Amino acid sequence: MSPEVYSLKPTPDQYAYAFGGREPLLTVEPGSIIDLATEDCFAGNVRSVDDLPSQVCTFPFLNPVTGPIAVRGAEPGDTIAVHFVEIVPARDWAVSTTFPHFGALTTTHATAMLHPALEERVWLYELDVAAGTCRFQARKSDFSVELPLDPMHGTVGVAPAANEVIMSITPAAHGGNMDTPEMRAGSTAYFGVNVEGGMLSIGDGHVRQGEGEVCGTAVEAAMRTTVVIDLVKGQAPPSPRLENDEFVMTTGSARPLEDAFRMSQHDLVGWTAQLLGLEELDAYQLVSQTGLAPAGNVVDTNYTMVGKLPKSVLGASQAYDGLHARLRDLGAEYLTRR
Amino acid sequence: MSPEVYSLKPTPDQYAYAFGGREPLLTVEPGSIIDLATEDCFAGNVRSVDDLPSQVCTFPFLNPVTGPIAVRGAEPGDTIAVHFVEIVPARDWAVSTTFPHFGALTTTHATAMLHPALEERVWLYELDVAAGTCRFQARKSDFSVELPLDPMHGTVGVAPAANEVIMSITPAAHGGNMDTPEMRAGSTAYFGVNVEGGMLSIGDGHVRQGEGEVCGTAVEAAMRTTVVIDLVKGQAPPSPRLENDEFVMTTGSARPLEDAFRMSQHDLVGWTAQLLGLEELDAYQLVSQTGLAPAGNVVDTNYTMVGKLPKSVLGASQAYDGLHARLRDLGAEYLTRR
Amino acid sequence: MSPEVYSLKPTPDQYAYAFGGREPLLTVEPGSIIDLATEDCFAGNVRSVDDLPSQVCTFPFLNPVTGPIAVRGAEPGDTIAVHFVEIVPARDWAVSTTFPHFGALTTTHATAMLHPALEERVWLYELDVAAGTCRFQARKSDFSVELPLDPMHGTVGVAPAANEVIMSITPAAHGGNMDTPEMRAGSTAYFGVNVEGGMLSIGDGHVRQGEGEVCGTAVEAAMRTTVVIDLVKGQAPPSPRLENDEFVMTTGSARPLEDAFRMSQHDLVGWTAQLLGLEELDAYQLVSQTGLAPAGNVVDTNYTMVGKLPKSVLGASQAYDGLHARLRDLGAEYLTRR
Amino acid sequence: MSPEVYSLKPTPDQYAYAFGGREPLLTVEPGSIIDLATEDCFAGNVRSVDDLPSQVCTFPFLNPVTGPIAVRGAEPGDTIAVHFVEIVPARDWAVSTTFPHFGALTTTHATAMLHPALEERVWLYELDVAAGTCRFQARKSDFSVELPLDPMHGTVGVAPAANEVIMSITPAAHGGNMDTPEMRAGSTAYFGVNVEGGMLSIGDGHVRQGEGEVCGTAVEAAMRTTVVIDLVKGQAPPSPRLENDEFVMTTGSARPLEDAFRMSQHDLVGWTAQLLGLEELDAYQLVSQTGLAPAGNVVDTNYTMVGKLPKSVLGASQAYDGLHARLRDLGAEYLTRR
Repeated sequence: MSPEVYSLKPTPDQYAYAFGGREPLLTVEPGSIIDLATEDCFAGNVRSVDDLPSQVCTFPFLNPVTGPIAVRGAEPGDTIAVHFVEIVPARDWAVSTTFPHFGALTTTHATAMLHPALEERVWLYELDVAAGTCRFQARKSDFSVELPLDPMHGTVGVAPAANEVIMSITPAAHGGNMDTPEMRAGSTAYFGVNVEGGMLSIGDGHVRQGEGEVCGTAVEAAMRTTVVIDLVKGQAPPSPRLENDEFVMTTGSARPLEDAFRMSQHDLVGWTAQLLGLEELDAYQLVSQTGLAPAGNVVDTNYTMVGKLPKSVLGASQAYDGLHARLRDLGAEYLTRR
Repeated sequence: MSPEVYSLKPTPDQYAYAFGGREPLLTVEPGSIIDLATEDCFAGNVRSVDDLPSQVCTFPFLNPVTGPIAVRGAEPGDTIAVHFVEIVPARDWAVSTTFPHFGALTTTHATAMLHPALEERVWLYELDVAAGTCRFQARKSDFSVELPLDPMHGTVGVAPAANEVIMSITPAAHGGNMDTPEMRAGSTAYFGVNVEGGMLSIGDGHVRQGEGEVCGTAVEAAMRTTVVIDLVKGQAPPSPRLENDEFVMTTGSARPLEDAFRMSQHDLVGWTAQLLGLEELDAYQLVSQTGLAPAGNVVDTNYTMVGKLPKSVLGASQAYDGLHARLRDLGAEYLTRR
Repeated sequence: MSPEVYSLKPTPDQYAYAFGGREPLLTVEPGSIIDLATEDCFAGNVRSVDDLPSQVCTFPFLNPVTGPIAVRGAEPGDTIAVHFVEIVPARDWAVSTTFPHFGALTTTHATAMLHPALEERVWLYELDVAAGTCRFQARKSDFSVELPLDPMHGTVGVAPAANEVIMSITPAAHGGNMDTPEMRAGSTAYFGVNVEGGMLSIGDGHVRQGEGEVCGTAVEAAMRTTVVIDLVKGQAPPSPRLENDEFVMTTGSARPLEDAFRMSQHDLVGWTAQLLGLEELDAYQLVSQTGLAPAGNVVDTNYTMVGKLPKSVLGASQAYDGLHARLRDLGAEYLTRR
Repeated sequence: MSPEVYSLKPTPDQYAYAFGGREPLLTVEPGSIIDLATEDCFAGNVRSVDDLPSQVCTFPFLNPVTGPIAVRGAEPGDTIAVHFVEIVPARDWAVSTTFPHFGALTTTHATAMLHPALEERVWLYELDVAAGTCRFQARKSDFSVELPLDPMHGTVGVAPAANEVIMSITPAAHGGNMDTPEMRAGSTAYFGVNVEGGMLSIGDGHVRQGEGEVCGTAVEAAMRTTVVIDLVKGQAPPSPRLENDEFVMTTGSARPLEDAFRMSQHDLVGWTAQLLGLEELDAYQLVSQTGLAPAGNVVDTNYTMVGKLPKSVLGASQAYDGLHARLRDLGAEYLTRR
């Protein structure tokens, strides 16, 4: 039996700018495929190097997300799995900027200093989707370089606990703006459900992003994205997890950055212990010698660290009973069939 | 003309436990090759699962380093380059432990809490150097798994500025205990010189280590290591830099972890700007989209973050006039000749 | 002309547990006096040393607040002033507890460690309101000591910006759970307005609290509180400010704690510059030599630092045109009249 | 029997710029009185508003300290007590400055950003020691204000553990540049001894300082200071402690600032438990409701927080068997006699 296929292309006024507090735009059965349209983090308003975001964007209408999508049967304590089948830029350009008081190497609202803001500047990237590249063009010199496309979504999450409504720019236990390049096609993300239906939203496409997202924005683009969504009863992780063919991954979103690291590693130790039947300190040891720990972002209202364990360490043990592989195969079949 | 080749195998009482404040054990010409012996971070005292470090080790005789090695002609403001030609475990075993009040997921002296210390436990790893593996054996179950060897040095540095004498366990601007897996054979590290001769020391071999070194220790081993050492006049970086065939890399060692991130990224932006002739914000943008940002350690007295830029972005531009490739070739030639 | 006097005593189901997202319980004119009832942070459920909060309280029904109160005419960018006339414990007992994974000297959700939680324990304090004391009684020995009452509100704030709904346990730019003992009778607090009416809520009475609130809870009590509320057009501060007869005060709520410090000091520098007509670096210097910087809390989801400048430094210059003194006098007159 | 009285006025080349690694300038018996001369943190080189420290000072010859003073009989694990009898400015002026890349509201070496440094500026304060005031004069306007003198020492400490040599600008477990205004006349400070003789040094006089020392420097002055020094066998605290007639106090020096807070509160809980015979969680509770937590500095290479417990809570219990009162009386008697 083929999965149900849905399409979700919001009109401009249908975008959400927060997680929580909204009725679903779409309700789906577990095991469904959804073709999504997402807008870029500037709501499409930055279209040339002269469009300074502080002038063409209006707070709080930043970082629009597509959703929420309710998953039928999802209850608090359950886990929603989202497999990214395909993430394709919707236009032949993408954009990045500095933004006053935003980024890791500038005074911000929180890291408050007496310096004036850094210059606000826009970089426009030409995309060649067929060639799989985008072009960085310096603004103050002739230097340019082709960079590989590596499309991903910066913002994916569900409605938060405790009836909170949290700006889409914030990453936390519900997911949100984690800004990790691991959220690419081929990855499955797992979110703990806090409210009936879970209420998944997706946005903030990047055609590529460095780890840490140090200037505050990636190469931002509207996307056409295909996901498979499924439901696991119970097993809600404390923070979002990811999985691809090579790694199981955990995340932590907090400040200071060492707390984000601690959260991601704490969950990686616990997950490893569970998957391998290890006592906790034995898992701590194994993770210490085999794990990877890249930064997601060090610029958002919370910072995000990722913990990665190679599946080679896990042997035959499979996370969520092999759900990732099943969703990956479902997605692949859909692409060939489409 | 062949480089001078030196051998440095300290007697037990010749090891140093700090950077700074010591006369050189060896003085070499720039461009020399040195075969080194290093002891493990427990000074070789933990040899079985019953050797608890808090019982068999004596503070402050932890983390012995081999050196200092004076480089003739090195003056404050210069740069010492150290290329790691080969790092080979000296024994057929290695060891890792938890240690009371040390590690990322435990109360420590600084992150002081009311919990009693976690259990102190030792893991002994059997090495198969020919096969390139080491075996993790759980202590509380039968689980075991072969892991690839990936030998590296946790501690490499020079004498600090301002006549400071800093315990070898601390990473800072002079290098020291950065505990990044990037310090492996095939990498060249660059250190700013603070005193006449620079005074390089090397220790803390790991047969492998996860990023973040979350439990506080890696798979610790005595090593037989070959390095090529060279001198660059001037150009002292603010914190140690690294380079391998694929990446140029910077480090930042500080607390909180976001400051370590900022330092590493700040230098990566500046170095990229210099290498490509970019204006600073243009370099900030380019690093943001192409850089990697793994944790080194999040457990030592300072934390270490690494910033990595793929050389593909740099095109024909070469760091330090191609010194890395020259040292790599010198080392390769030495290995074939030896 | 006498100010309007209102009374607001919520029924149990009228309490709010968040800032934002609610219709007002009461709408008042600027310049009004309100007699409020507030419940304690355990919603009154911890009444003996055997009532462990994790058993008698239900997440997210923690830290109830009384409100929101809409102030007629308040628009985004305005400032709501709240003067605390009187804060009187409603019962002859108060209570404090440890709580699993909460507090500054314990593993928490964010500072995630492998330790089991500290013991959960309840301390019941007998109050003698006439004598102005409460009695600390140790649980594991006979030690007891009388401590002076110093009643205050831990949680005071308005609806957040960007339509967010934020748990009442979190302090941020909108105020919330700042947990500073400076929020006592005799103080005036200033909040920037984000939504029509401002939507002020007050809760979390403490009969006394140490700076930092290190174990996570103060001496918690239901209160009968009288406030005067007024409106200043414009002049919204970036974070809540306070004022009493001796000091003008700023707050910063963020993580890490140095960012909370930076925010509070940044606003104190800016405010001082404005009040004295000083250039910014001159104000930076003056604050550096005369300011105080106590911790509010170092336990909540954000930490809070307070910056204090003695009014002696300000000479004849008055914040908000002397509003604090006018509200203080209005309140005093009300107390004599009542 | 009268205590021995010593005088220690270093010649310019006798000042030290670090803790550790030096022979004593003076050796005294426990119970001795010492009249000291200290230079200001600029080594006396900033004498007018035109003397920019980056031009007239030479790294690392900053923050000179007077010492070390060896205390006869002091062994590792012991405690040196230093009571400040009198701290008197040596000149009729004092000075404060901003300094490039130093301070809490500016980019620094660790909190590395792309901003250029803030302006370097000098403020000269006229002192009126008889009146007990100093005058702040704005540089960019006519504003001036008299501020009360409150002389203190920013830098007091002993030789560090592990044979480290640490710049005098760094506060840590050995003391050093804690920059807390609590180090004033009337206070007794306690330091754990790490090396034979302890090796006490004192410097960095401030005629006054705000908490946090936000711009990076206080009102800096050379001082004529009288201390009584005594020795307690054993009982070394983990970090320096202080005591005056009203409070017992602990310190923590670390980054991030919450770790400095944790260290200071952890020791305050342990000390309170010991002084009152309380079980640990009971002491945690008591400190939570009665402690104060001001910032020392948030600008140095480590930040310092102070924890304060009112002696009223301690009843008849006395720290170190009443040593503070005995040293205070000895000092008072010396002043009348002198």
